[in-house]
Parts: sequence; structure tokens; C-alpha cells
Amino acid sequence: MNSLESSISYFESAFREQISIIEATAPQRLYEPVAYSLKIGGKRLRPALMLHTASLFTKSVGQILPAAMAIEIFHNFTLLHDDIMDKSDMRRGVPTVHRKYSENTAILSGDAMSILAFKYLGKINNSHLQEVFSLFSITALEVCEGQQLDMDFETRDQVTIDEYIEMIRLKTAVLIACSLKMGALLAGAGSEQADLLYDYGIYVGLAFQLQDDWLDVFGDPEIFGKKQGVDICANKKTFLLLKAFEACDADLLQELNHWIQKTDFDPKEKVAAVIAIYEKTGVSQAAHDLMKSYHDKALAALGKLDIPAAEKKTLIAFADEAMVRAK
Amino acid sequence: MNSLESSISYFESAFREQISIIEATAPQRLYEPVAYSLKIGGKRLRPALMLHTASLFTKSVGQILPAAMAIEIFHNFTLLHDDIMDKSDMRRGVPTVHRKYSENTAILSGDAMSILAFKYLGKINNSHLQEVFSLFSITALEVCEGQQLDMDFETRDQVTIDEYIEMIRLKTAVLIACSLKMGALLAGAGSEQADLLYDYGIYVGLAFQLQDDWLDVFGDPEIFGKKQGVDICANKKTFLLLKAFEACDADLLQELNHWIQKTDFDPKEKVAAVIAIYEKTGVSQAAHDLMKSYHDKALAALGKLDIPAAEKKTLIAFADEAMVRAK
Repeated sequence: MNSLESSISYFESAFREQISIIEATAPQRLYEPVAYSLKIGGKRLRPALMLHTASLFTKSVGQILPAAMAIEIFHNFTLLHDDIMDKSDMRRGVPTVHRKYSENTAILSGDAMSILAFKYLGKINNSHLQEVFSLFSITALEVCEGQQLDMDFETRDQVTIDEYIEMIRLKTAVLIACSLKMGALLAGAGSEQADLLYDYGIYVGLAFQLQDDWLDVFGDPEIFGKKQGVDICANKKTFLLLKAFEACDADLLQELNHWIQKTDFDPKEKVAAVIAIYEKTGVSQAAHDLMKSYHDKALAALGKLDIPAAEKKTLIAFADEAMVRAK
Repeated sequence: MNSLESSISYFESAFREQISIIEATAPQRLYEPVAYSLKIGGKRLRPALMLHTASLFTKSVGQILPAAMAIEIFHNFTLLHDDIMDKSDMRRGVPTVHRKYSENTAILSGDAMSILAFKYLGKINNSHLQEVFSLFSITALEVCEGQQLDMDFETRDQVTIDEYIEMIRLKTAVLIACSLKMGALLAGAGSEQADLLYDYGIYVGLAFQLQDDWLDVFGDPEIFGKKQGVDICANKKTFLLLKAFEACDADLLQELNHWIQKTDFDPKEKVAAVIAIYEKTGVSQAAHDLMKSYHDKALAALGKLDIPAAEKKTLIAFADEAMVRAK
């Protein structure tokens, strides 16, 4: 598999078959919402990264497909339950599960998805299963911890940039890193190689999330697929906002606090005003500098990987893409 | 371990240590509710059954403690999320997690508990881990399926007794059966012995749940620890109600339907009226006959077990207790 796209298609066709099986399982009111959630789609980045990584060390990638499905099912479970907690009505252009069905359905179907992920992982017949199983359960807990910190930050007055980075490491980066490491371990790459890929995944994951924050403000809503400034309107403590607080002079700080505290505002006006502050404080550049430093660390980890340079192309391209992507 | 009580104490002291570790884990807002939920307690029947069963086949029961904890954590996770879905305010005399903290906390802490159960299971170093892992994840899914059927039945007009039994098999019996089977497998008992214990667990679990239904109506609320007739007031389609519908003549049917359809009623009056119908239709005896048949099947499975008769005493006593217990 030379490109991530080919891993994505390979995964998608096998996964669609499994979704059909899940959809046809009784009781229908439990499994149909599971299938609905899995069909909504998404980029399938995590399973594709796992399969691609495995392909660097083995020719029999098909064997680890159930583990790739486990990661994708788990990821979609977290989105489903996060949508309940965040009261989000739409995801990828369609109603979220708790909107389309009910909140109880969303809770229970999500529970089933989390368990289903472990069930798929258990299908693997591999001498490294115990190690992978332990990695997966620790990572899954970390994702919950990240979501908890994200919710905690909403009600806290002060959040440092370090705390924010730790939150996105847990909420986003560890599952990407886990996908890569699992692919390596299951392909028999050994723990040293697997750990390098984990490090690569953490740094790419952090850059990926920072770019997500950046796109909310500076992206093209048509391409990004989300309205501009959603985070700004919600006072979400992203890197940009936290950095702006750090970099503001007294006047700008007063203006920023004015917009943060205002409960009755015209969204367009607030977004424009906060963007103006972001521009004056140079937080866009600061975000790019930080992304660049993560990008470099990701590539440094990749550099140490004991495979021919030509085979690193796809992962280098993915790291590049993480910080320039427009969607 | 000769009695279930000694297995319970053995488990409880080891488990309390783990709960303290969980309670001290950050982020506190995620793990404190987990510890709260685990400390509420309960009978610890499932882990005790697992440890006792293991003790029938091995002397080194301590090794499987993490699996016993996995079962207990998973069981408490299902209670926690069921309490959200059922909007229950109290459990075992204290506020439920979603009442004490918040619904979001209850969702996310429950998610963490479900994953934590798998993490504990993964701590086991045992040649049968893959088989046990597969059994546990299939069982965990079945418990979700049982909860879904339970919710489905609330809004359905017609539920057969067979459907009801299948629901309680999934919601209650399989996790008890799984505990016993896991204990046997992890102790190296072999699959034939393990399957007999699974069958025993299913039948005892069914009898256990039928007795639960019976105690709601005919138990001593002081001893049972729950108000009398909660199921009756909620029109819960228990064995007793479904059997009463089957056994009613036209007049009684009209009276039963009257009470079912009445939205504005005095609880005491409704409970007394429905109990009178239950007495006229002999559903209490029918429940005991069915429990007795499950009890006999449980003992038949136990009879085939290839261990000395004297060592079966505790499990025989547990089967007896399941159908006569008052709390």
C-alpha cells in the first residue's frame, strides 16, 4: 500500500461488509443506530494509518483488519457520546444519533460500540495480542480523560497552554498514535520501532488538532465544512484564544474580555472582532510555529525508523498534510 | 474457599485497594464518580462466583482477581448507565451518579468503567486469555441487548413470556453465567466443565431474576430494601404481569387493563388491586414453579460436573438461595 488513499479504500470495502452484518443484528433498535453512526463515515484516517504502518513490516495486512475496525468503531463511539454531552445536533451533515433516535438509544448504542471495538480486537490471532490489548485499553481510557479535561476547561477561568496541549494529546493524539503503534506491533515490528511510530503519531496528532482550531477561524467554511468561528462564539479555550490572552496588551485584553463576557451578541460581529484581535496578537503565526515544531518532531521520529527512506514517503506526506490541510 | 461469603470477603478487600487507586487517579472529575459507583457496593456476587468456581479447579485463585474485578466493574457500569436511562434517582440508598454529579459525568464515567473492565481483564497472564476475552466481550454485548429489549418492551403492547425470559437471560443471567465460566476457564478446567458451569449460571440467573420480580410484589420491603409494588406502579412487564394476562378470565382482564391504563391513581390502591388479581390468577405459584424448573436444571448441570460432590455444596446452596432469598 503506497498511499494512504489505497489503505482507506482497502479498509472501507471490508468495513462496509461488517457494517451490513452489524445492521442486520437483533435487536434492531440497538444495532441500527450503531450502523448509522458507522456509516456517517469520516476520513477513516486511524484504520488507514494502522494498515499502512503494518504494510511497512509485513505483507499479510489482511490479518489485522479486525484491529483496524476496532479503532474505527471506538473512534465513532467517542464521537457519538461526545455529541450527547456537547448537545450537538448535526455531524457531517446528518443528524447525530441522539437527535435522530433518542438520548437513551445514543447512550446504549454507544456502549455497545465501545464493547464491539474490544470484540473486534479479540478476533485477532496474533502473538502480540496481549500487548496490543493493553495499549488499546489504556489509550481508550486516555481518550475519556481528554474528553473530561475538555469539559472541565469549559467551566474553568484559567487554562494554561500546556494544559490545553495535554488535553488535545489525550483527546485526539493518543488514538492516532495508538493506531500506528498497533499496526507496527501486530506486524511484528518490535517495540522500539513501534514506539517511534507512536511518537510520530502524537506529534502529528497535536499538529492535526491545532490545524483544526486554526481552520475554525481562518479556514474556508465551504471547504472545511463547518461554519466559521464556532469555537469563537462558544468561547472555546483553543490554542488561539489562550495564546491571544497571553499576547494581549491591556487595551486588547479589555476588548477580548468584553467579547468573552457578552452573552447577547451578533455572531458575525463577535467573530470579526475576535479575529481582529487574533491578527493583532499574531496567534495565527504562533499556531503555525507550534505546528511546525510538532511536524519536525514527527519527522525526527520517522527518521529514526529502521526502514528504507522511500517507504517513509506516505507518512512524511501525512505529516505535511496535517498542518496545511484545508478540510 | 468453602463458602461464597469467604470469596466475597477475599474479593472485597482486594477490590477496595483498587478502588482507592482509581479514586486517586486524575482527572478527578472522571475517576471520583467511578470510585463512588464502585463503592456503593452491592453483593459482589459475580466476582465471588468467579473466584469460588476457580477455587474448585486451582489453588492459585489470586491470579484471576483482575478478571473478577473486570466483571464487577462492568456490572456496576451497566447499573450506572441503566440508572441514567431509567431516570433512577437512588440506588442502594444513595443518590445515583447522574443525580449526585451530572448526566454528562455519568455518561463519561460509565464509559471509562466499561473500558476499565477490559483493562483489568487484560492484566491477566493466562494461556486462556483470548477465549476469556472473547466470552467477556460477547457477554457484555448481550447485556446491552438485554437492556435494549427491556426498554423496547416498555412501549410494546404485546410481550410473550418467552420474549421476557430471553430478555432477562440477556440482561441478567449471561453475566452470572460468564462469571462462572471465566472462573473455570482461567483455572484451566477445560471447556466442557466450563460450559456446564455456564449452563448452571444461566438457570440460576433466571431464577434469581424471577425471584427479584416476585419480591417486588410479595417480598418484605423492609428486608428487600425497595418499596413494594414499584414494578406494578410502572406497569413493568414482569413474569407476574405477563402470566396474569395469560391466566385472566374476561372480568379480571378488564379489571387488570383498567389499572394498567389508569394514569392517575393512588399507588397503594393500585398495588393492592393488582396483587389481588395476581392472587386470583395464581401467578405467584406459577413463578415458583418456573423457578423450581430452573433450579432443577441448574442442579442437573452441576450434577454432571466432574468434581467431588462435597465441593459442589456452595453452588448447590447458591441455587437454593436464589429462589428463596428475601433480599
